[in-house]
Amino acid sequence: MMKSWIETANLIECHFSLANLPYGVFGRDGEAPRCGVAIGDVVADLAALERLGLIEAGDAPVFDKPALNDFMALGKPRWAAVRARLRALFARDGDPALRDDPALRARVLAPLEAVRLHLPFKVAGFTDFYANRHHAQNVGTMFRGPENALPPNWLSIPIGYNGRASTVVVSGTNITRPLGQIRPAGQGLPGFGPCRRLDLELELGAVVGTPSVMGRPLTVAEADAMIFGYVLLNDWSARDIQAWEYQPLGPFQAKAFATSISPWVVTAAALAPFRVATPPRERPLLPYLTEPGPMLYDIDLEIRLRPPRARRPTTISRTNYREMYFSAAQQLAHHASSGCKMETGDLLGSGTISGPAKDSRGSLLELAWGGAEPLTLDTGEMRTFLEDGDTLTLTGWAQGEGYRVGFGDCTGRILPAPAEPDWTAAEAHLG
Amino acid sequence: MMKSWIETANLIECHFSLANLPYGVFGRDGEAPRCGVAIGDVVADLAALERLGLIEAGDAPVFDKPALNDFMALGKPRWAAVRARLRALFARDGDPALRDDPALRARVLAPLEAVRLHLPFKVAGFTDFYANRHHAQNVGTMFRGPENALPPNWLSIPIGYNGRASTVVVSGTNITRPLGQIRPAGQGLPGFGPCRRLDLELELGAVVGTPSVMGRPLTVAEADAMIFGYVLLNDWSARDIQAWEYQPLGPFQAKAFATSISPWVVTAAALAPFRVATPPRERPLLPYLTEPGPMLYDIDLEIRLRPPRARRPTTISRTNYREMYFSAAQQLAHHASSGCKMETGDLLGSGTISGPAKDSRGSLLELAWGGAEPLTLDTGEMRTFLEDGDTLTLTGWAQGEGYRVGFGDCTGRILPAPAEPDWTAAEAHLG
Repeated sequence: MMKSWIETANLIECHFSLANLPYGVFGRDGEAPRCGVAIGDVVADLAALERLGLIEAGDAPVFDKPALNDFMALGKPRWAAVRARLRALFARDGDPALRDDPALRARVLAPLEAVRLHLPFKVAGFTDFYANRHHAQNVGTMFRGPENALPPNWLSIPIGYNGRASTVVVSGTNITRPLGQIRPAGQGLPGFGPCRRLDLELELGAVVGTPSVMGRPLTVAEADAMIFGYVLLNDWSARDIQAWEYQPLGPFQAKAFATSISPWVVTAAALAPFRVATPPRERPLLPYLTEPGPMLYDIDLEIRLRPPRARRPTTISRTNYREMYFSAAQQLAHHASSGCKMETGDLLGSGTISGPAKDSRGSLLELAWGGAEPLTLDTGEMRTFLEDGDTLTLTGWAQGEGYRVGFGDCTGRILPAPAEPDWTAAEAHLG
Repeated sequence: MMKSWIETANLIECHFSLANLPYGVFGRDGEAPRCGVAIGDVVADLAALERLGLIEAGDAPVFDKPALNDFMALGKPRWAAVRARLRALFARDGDPALRDDPALRARVLAPLEAVRLHLPFKVAGFTDFYANRHHAQNVGTMFRGPENALPPNWLSIPIGYNGRASTVVVSGTNITRPLGQIRPAGQGLPGFGPCRRLDLELELGAVVGTPSVMGRPLTVAEADAMIFGYVLLNDWSARDIQAWEYQPLGPFQAKAFATSISPWVVTAAALAPFRVATPPRERPLLPYLTEPGPMLYDIDLEIRLRPPRARRPTTISRTNYREMYFSAAQQLAHHASSGCKMETGDLLGSGTISGPAKDSRGSLLELAWGGAEPLTLDTGEMRTFLEDGDTLTLTGWAQGEGYRVGFGDCTGRILPAPAEPDWTAAEAHLG
């Protein structure tokens, strides 16, 4: 493994090794957010490097922006060129331009702990999938009974639904417990109030770089080449709102209140050495979904829950992205199969990533089996669903020989539900 | 009714009367698209009027843009001020600045038939609802049988689902028949191929002007005041793809390929005289959905189908927006109830607007009862679903005393499905 002159990047548990080089958007307080790359414990200012002529991505500058979208739209050859250049700049025996110039280093590098990380890209559309066999089996059993657990189309379609892009937020953003229509068990009619079954979903999000043309389907290979990278994604879910609303047209307010993503986009290029095949098919795929090669990734994933006042979190689940039944490339190809135009900044949630074991499930719904089997945290406290003040952290990394390609953390803390407004107080404005 | 010095605006069937003043985006070929307002048979260039100081909307210019979003974000008082100013400029006995200056008129006014109309606003998010009682009953009967037609939550929730914003196109854009997974009747497994049950859905789209705050619900009155205006909306639907994919998480590729909207946004202000109450409740509403006043509109709507080579279309349905069970304001309040942030440019489809009579249904699925009762067109041809070359036109207007507040047309012509790519030909790009 090639070493960096930024020594923290060479630590064996460091997520941001020289092999990684994930992209994000950062700024100190009061500074304009701009694009950066994480390495070791620092972030390198890509806007500054570009201005100084030390990197060149496109014909016009793309990094002095509050979002990665302009860079992502450039496409795979340009991504590869910038990646190669960054590796040269940060390798121990690479280009000395930055390494040997202390004044330049001071201008370009900032400690990660000193900067604020922003949403890394403008989310064009957010689509969430339901493409993990264990999760579908678990949830289907709870929602529809074991005999109807897996819908008849599940093995044929990477099932997806459109989510809400406006509430995709960056890690660290507090999550307000939603209000909603909830039908108490055994009652016929719903009430309106705070969610009581607030859950997380551990997912990976694929980020679309280059757009497609409306009316034209994509092959899986084309789809794969359009994916710029991946983020950790927590698809917060209000299970009681969901249970009452989701039939017949799918989840809506149960998912619309918030989705958290990691501040760092780990590129498909950095993950390439960790490609693995999807599991054997239980039903042959239609040709348009056939993969030309291995398209999942071997990425270890963990969920940590820290209750209020606890000093340390409890790791409540350990799983791996390779447990998916459909890859992001297959999901993207399916998404475009009708001619749906895909755009730079589209975010595709993998769906909850559960493993086969009980402690490898990707949601509290599954971990505590709908409330029937509470989890015990390291503090001795019990959990069936999330409580106010709980902090959830997702983390994940691909494990190389003596190095990691990691995502850092994706965290969120639960705030109490808002007070209900006086629904009749506001003026009618019937202009 | 106040008359305009643009005489075509005073014709009793003219959609673009002085009472209307709908906003859109236009340009001659080769010109930069910019905002305009339709009156009679002309479009007035709002960017030019703003530049000349004849109208003033915001502190900075908002009309020399390819989308209405900046203007829509200004909020109700500014919308009202611009509307009042435009009425004065175009009223027969109003401000003579434009009326009496032929050179200025030549600079500012263009015949509608000479300009190209663009998508009027950048669609932030597209949400489609399912909030018409007749439609839900009809479709539910066909999909789930009469005993399960209306889901248990239907009378409590304005049921909605997130749609795809990237494929919302302006009237006049051709619609390519989608490919997709389809399970032939009586077979267990699906194939992949062109949709055979291509349908339209007659809807009205509500356009959100001012945004809301993440985590904060909206009252119905607040929601109503945020709605800038309405467009005609055709939610093209692939019924065979839908039937196989929509359980358990809702429609996806069956709707993702295209949604057409009219080029003109008719403002809530122009429609205010036509407000009507929602129908009597069959089940009491939760307080957060209670309307402070009448929030539907009396808008006549028609669907016209012109087969290839026919000279004239057949009107296949006549209905009215007042047939909705939930208003757009209720839908928007529900949409924000979980704390979901609403944005300038969000588009909320009403859901298919069917009336109680057979010839007032809003989709071919209902009009031809799932294919069982083909329609006969004026040419003698039969239709169950749409055929290649068919041109669909939606139109609608509120009928005043001797004048109309109309939407113009929303049209789309069906093109054949694309040839399937060679799914294995593309290079794998496994970088």
